Amino acid sequence: MVNNVQRVDDTWRTCTKSNSSGTSNSGGESSKESSRSSTPVLAADRTERLRDKMRRRTESGDHWFSLEFFPPRTASGAVNLVSRFDRMGSGGPLFIDITWHPAGDPGSDKETSSMMIASTAVNYCGLESILHLTCCNQTKEKITGYLSKAKHLGLKNIMALRGDPVGADWEEEEGGFNYATDLVKHIRCEFDDYFDICVAGYPTGHPEADSYDEDLRHLKEKVDAGADFIITQLFFRADTFLKFVRDCRAIGITCPILPGIFPIQGYQSLRQLVKLSKLEVPEEIMRVIEPIKDNDAAIRNYGIEQTVGMCRVLLESGNVPGLHFYTLNREVATMEVLRQLGLWIEDPRRPLPWAVSAHPKRKVEDVRPIFWASRPKSYIYRTQDWDDFPNGRWGNSSSPAFGELNDYYLFYLKSKSSKDALLKMWGEELTSEQSVYKVFTSYIKAQPNCAGHKVMCLPWNDEPLAPETNLMMDELDKVNRRGVLTINSQPTINGKPSDDPIVGWGPPGGYVFQKAYLEFFTSSENVTVLLKVLKKYEPRVNYHIVNVHGQNTTNAHDMQPNAVTWGIFPGREIVQPTVVDPVSFMYWKDEAFALWIEQWAKLYEDESPSRMIIKYIHDNYFLVNLVDNDFPLDNCLWQVIDDMFELLDNPPDEQPTEQPVEQPAEESPVEDQSPK
Amino acid sequence: MVNNVQRVDDTWRTCTKSNSSGTSNSGGESSKESSRSSTPVLAADRTERLRDKMRRRTESGDHWFSLEFFPPRTASGAVNLVSRFDRMGSGGPLFIDITWHPAGDPGSDKETSSMMIASTAVNYCGLESILHLTCCNQTKEKITGYLSKAKHLGLKNIMALRGDPVGADWEEEEGGFNYATDLVKHIRCEFDDYFDICVAGYPTGHPEADSYDEDLRHLKEKVDAGADFIITQLFFRADTFLKFVRDCRAIGITCPILPGIFPIQGYQSLRQLVKLSKLEVPEEIMRVIEPIKDNDAAIRNYGIEQTVGMCRVLLESGNVPGLHFYTLNREVATMEVLRQLGLWIEDPRRPLPWAVSAHPKRKVEDVRPIFWASRPKSYIYRTQDWDDFPNGRWGNSSSPAFGELNDYYLFYLKSKSSKDALLKMWGEELTSEQSVYKVFTSYIKAQPNCAGHKVMCLPWNDEPLAPETNLMMDELDKVNRRGVLTINSQPTINGKPSDDPIVGWGPPGGYVFQKAYLEFFTSSENVTVLLKVLKKYEPRVNYHIVNVHGQNTTNAHDMQPNAVTWGIFPGREIVQPTVVDPVSFMYWKDEAFALWIEQWAKLYEDESPSRMIIKYIHDNYFLVNLVDNDFPLDNCLWQVIDDMFELLDNPPDEQPTEQPVEQPAEESPVEDQSPK
Repeated sequence: MVNNVQRVDDTWRTCTKSNSSGTSNSGGESSKESSRSSTPVLAADRTERLRDKMRRRTESGDHWFSLEFFPPRTASGAVNLVSRFDRMGSGGPLFIDITWHPAGDPGSDKETSSMMIASTAVNYCGLESILHLTCCNQTKEKITGYLSKAKHLGLKNIMALRGDPVGADWEEEEGGFNYATDLVKHIRCEFDDYFDICVAGYPTGHPEADSYDEDLRHLKEKVDAGADFIITQLFFRADTFLKFVRDCRAIGITCPILPGIFPIQGYQSLRQLVKLSKLEVPEEIMRVIEPIKDNDAAIRNYGIEQTVGMCRVLLESGNVPGLHFYTLNREVATMEVLRQLGLWIEDPRRPLPWAVSAHPKRKVEDVRPIFWASRPKSYIYRTQDWDDFPNGRWGNSSSPAFGELNDYYLFYLKSKSSKDALLKMWGEELTSEQSVYKVFTSYIKAQPNCAGHKVMCLPWNDEPLAPETNLMMDELDKVNRRGVLTINSQPTINGKPSDDPIVGWGPPGGYVFQKAYLEFFTSSENVTVLLKVLKKYEPRVNYHIVNVHGQNTTNAHDMQPNAVTWGIFPGREIVQPTVVDPVSFMYWKDEAFALWIEQWAKLYEDESPSRMIIKYIHDNYFLVNLVDNDFPLDNCLWQVIDDMFELLDNPPDEQPTEQPVEQPAEESPVEDQSPK
Repeated sequence: MVNNVQRVDDTWRTCTKSNSSGTSNSGGESSKESSRSSTPVLAADRTERLRDKMRRRTESGDHWFSLEFFPPRTASGAVNLVSRFDRMGSGGPLFIDITWHPAGDPGSDKETSSMMIASTAVNYCGLESILHLTCCNQTKEKITGYLSKAKHLGLKNIMALRGDPVGADWEEEEGGFNYATDLVKHIRCEFDDYFDICVAGYPTGHPEADSYDEDLRHLKEKVDAGADFIITQLFFRADTFLKFVRDCRAIGITCPILPGIFPIQGYQSLRQLVKLSKLEVPEEIMRVIEPIKDNDAAIRNYGIEQTVGMCRVLLESGNVPGLHFYTLNREVATMEVLRQLGLWIEDPRRPLPWAVSAHPKRKVEDVRPIFWASRPKSYIYRTQDWDDFPNGRWGNSSSPAFGELNDYYLFYLKSKSSKDALLKMWGEELTSEQSVYKVFTSYIKAQPNCAGHKVMCLPWNDEPLAPETNLMMDELDKVNRRGVLTINSQPTINGKPSDDPIVGWGPPGGYVFQKAYLEFFTSSENVTVLLKVLKKYEPRVNYHIVNVHGQNTTNAHDMQPNAVTWGIFPGREIVQPTVVDPVSFMYWKDEAFALWIEQWAKLYEDESPSRMIIKYIHDNYFLVNLVDNDFPLDNCLWQVIDDMFELLDNPPDEQPTEQPVEQPAEESPVEDQSPK
């Protein structure tokens, strides 16, 4: 009978796990470590290194893509590139890589350096990233310094290149870095197996190599020195690459070889690239392009068509597990190619309701305070020095020492918009608190303000409203009109499927939940009335109300976080990725109030009325957050605000003893109606 | 405007917490520790010591009661007493206390010793407990040894008594324990503030004291030496106690003084107690009792009435925060008095779906595997050596090294029923596996078996079915009839209020959830078919299927616990107190299979057919657990079992190639219809 079951078991191998042990004790021993699994939702992805992910996807026959970018020249270019990372990251690249620009101080802390751009991609955009590194004309100390810094920043992958010699009189140096092979050896020598290493392959041979065969031998040396995979130079015919792969395999190169794909996007960029790489553009391509060389759109459309065709051949060959795209920092062509190939993930499955950082240390992060929901990069920045990240439960292992505000206004945390654009959106001149309210309502409704400019962002929200928030637009509009200036909110969700396109996250087959949340600034007059109203909503509604001075009123437990987003999944523990945490709220409050001044008030002249209005709000308004704990019922938070307005509009009769003594009618001149 | 809010704040002091700090950093510092709060559901109760609970309840004007028991003489008496602890514990005593019987080897490991009974109450029944300790004729080393052992067992409270001298020739010893005061001093000296200490008060003066006043002075000395509160000897008139309290206060005794309440339960027990305590029964009571002294029921009814009247006077005096009952190890009279006084908690709020142990170390325990749901004492015993208990999440801090089975059959883990009673319930003689199935169905339906005896327990369930399980009685009956021998189950719950009388737990205002769970033994033939059926239910249903040899088939993650009971509460993190954990299942399986042999097979003679039948099941059946992950839908587990029966009843036509070659009709004699 036991054999019967074993047989059944075998037929189930793909979807069952079999574990046969004589005694339960041995099972227990082996599982002591295992039961400490820390990430209930995300499995392999969080701990796997790039080469293992690549192997797993290759084995599963699941094609992937990756994207190459170069560092921008200017700070505003960097801000734009980071936004591009976010957009292109949503399509699901296996990794991105950042080229090394020796002339651009590539290892520095400048916002435009290769190092910092790669760090931003990993830490703030959650993208698996490869940093290029060239060794030509560098000392070993310098290279080791770069690698140590990269490691410290959470970078795990290096593209090891020789780079172009400076000047024409370059010669091999004894003991120096003469070839990429030397760099690969150096990395393995100094950092053991810490980095995954990628090297370059040349499907038509390196232009400086004596021959195609000699270049192949160099490539073999690079792999033997410890490289994990190869990305090739661009090429124009599928056959070129497929022959190259055959030749590589023939001489014993067994690692993955990824084709470098270059969608032609314009006549000039093609010419320039060809010149730099000393490649020849095939006749059949030039014949199409030459006649339309002044029509950028036509060339791009041709480039897309040509690339899609070539990629189809590559993928169908069975020798190409993934495609590597030279994006030239542009989105449209590459995204279109990927869409046509069916590789672009239109509805990326979110493992958690917020983007998981790709930093190795942060991969176990399971819970965050809701306050930074619209400012995730700020949260990552302010918690970058934490040793541990809360593991499913905020209360346990969190280290609530948030980074200071003063060193925090880094380029990638700033608004993407220019001062001019912000002034147009938020008002060249403010005349009253009401003009501020109008900015908020324009933002909520994504409508032009009175000067005709659409308000696309606020200091607390650098993006237009999330689709989820759109569900509440009418209510948000109504309360902002009256000075309840909302900066964060989420609706009630009572068990929607985890693959819901708007609110879903986590593995399939689960259910997600939310408690309604509302966070806003409002005047102290409103707060006085609000506190009376909230009495009626005990204990259903939890609140924290704080002003810039830290004066704090709450009905929540001092130390207890309130889970406001959670998910139930098949065969898992419960995941609660978002909490309202009283401790972190006090840190967020500093940031939330500071944004009034730093992003808004400072747009205006010192002492100007506009600046004084923002300053008044900063000094006198309160930051309020409300949680409706009763998630199976309709969200009551709008009713709370309505009740506040109602009480403001119709204050109850004051107590007789507090009423001013009525003056006899004859002593009260008709013209003086003001209260005594 | 700030002042406005402060004023509002003041009026809210009772239900809001105000925290005003100039900088958020200082707030952050102070909260580093606080945010590590480990118990999302249970607040003060888990960490408070008895004297603080007492103070808090006194301050809130909330009357309590406590219960005194003495150690039993026999092991079966001990089993009965532990059941009584469970029943009387459900009424919500603030604590119980266990008297010290010097003649009964009170500090030993015997199942009937004072020490072990108190330890059982704390560790297995979850009751705050006081251990009495008498010092008369004892060495300091001996006393210190008792106290160390008590501390080690998780006891936190000591009632310090002198005790009765052995023999008539007792004299004070220099440096020995002559009075309870000496014991109090010794405890404080050796154990600092670890124990809460209670001492005895004598409302009419100690019989050996020279005078009432001298006795009061002795009491003052005991309190001054470090006692935390006083429990008095019994008395018959409220005035006696109230005068005593006044006299205590007058000489500066300020600690709580709890009246010892003795409901008269019978003529003989009253006479005996009066003789021992040298008390006089008041005339007005004797006048009632003497005429009915042979009518136990009448005396008990009178005792209840008399006690209720006296307690009402005490409570209404405002000087009595709680009542201490001398139960004489009986339930009826004390429970009735408490019910009439409104102190008995009819629907005790469960902080978690299982009883929380009162051991100081275990108070932070937040999650348990579901397998021991019907055997909680066994689970506590088998995990007693753990350093940490899983804190909200099984995966994090659990220490899955379960105690061995061999030293585990302690008296309080055994069946409460005698061998004779078990044989009557489970069958004097078994004739087939079907006779075992019938025992299960009789248990499920709480009906008499074929011999006319009600089946009140099974080896895996020492109590009749839980009310929750009753909801599924028809389905359980149906499947057990056919050899799906269920030992644990819970229905789906999709967000019932936390105060639901059947399935609710946790603080008010929350919602509780469950995934449906079913655990059973069944034959390997059934398992073979079940595995085919389960294919249809992927990934909705998780299963573990294991036999006694540890051969294990599962579609669940090796290391991932599956949360099957969880609760969402206002202002809290999510609580998930019950999980299906793959690791602990392998330990449970050893216990579950062993119970067939230890509790059932061994009822029968060696080699007897009855024993062989149980042995066959033990050796050949599989233990199966199923979880339906889709908690918002109707439980599909019954459908899974139905599908299995369906497939067993109507096996699909075998494949043509496997079918026996059809014989020509003429060669097949009509009388041989059996398949070849």
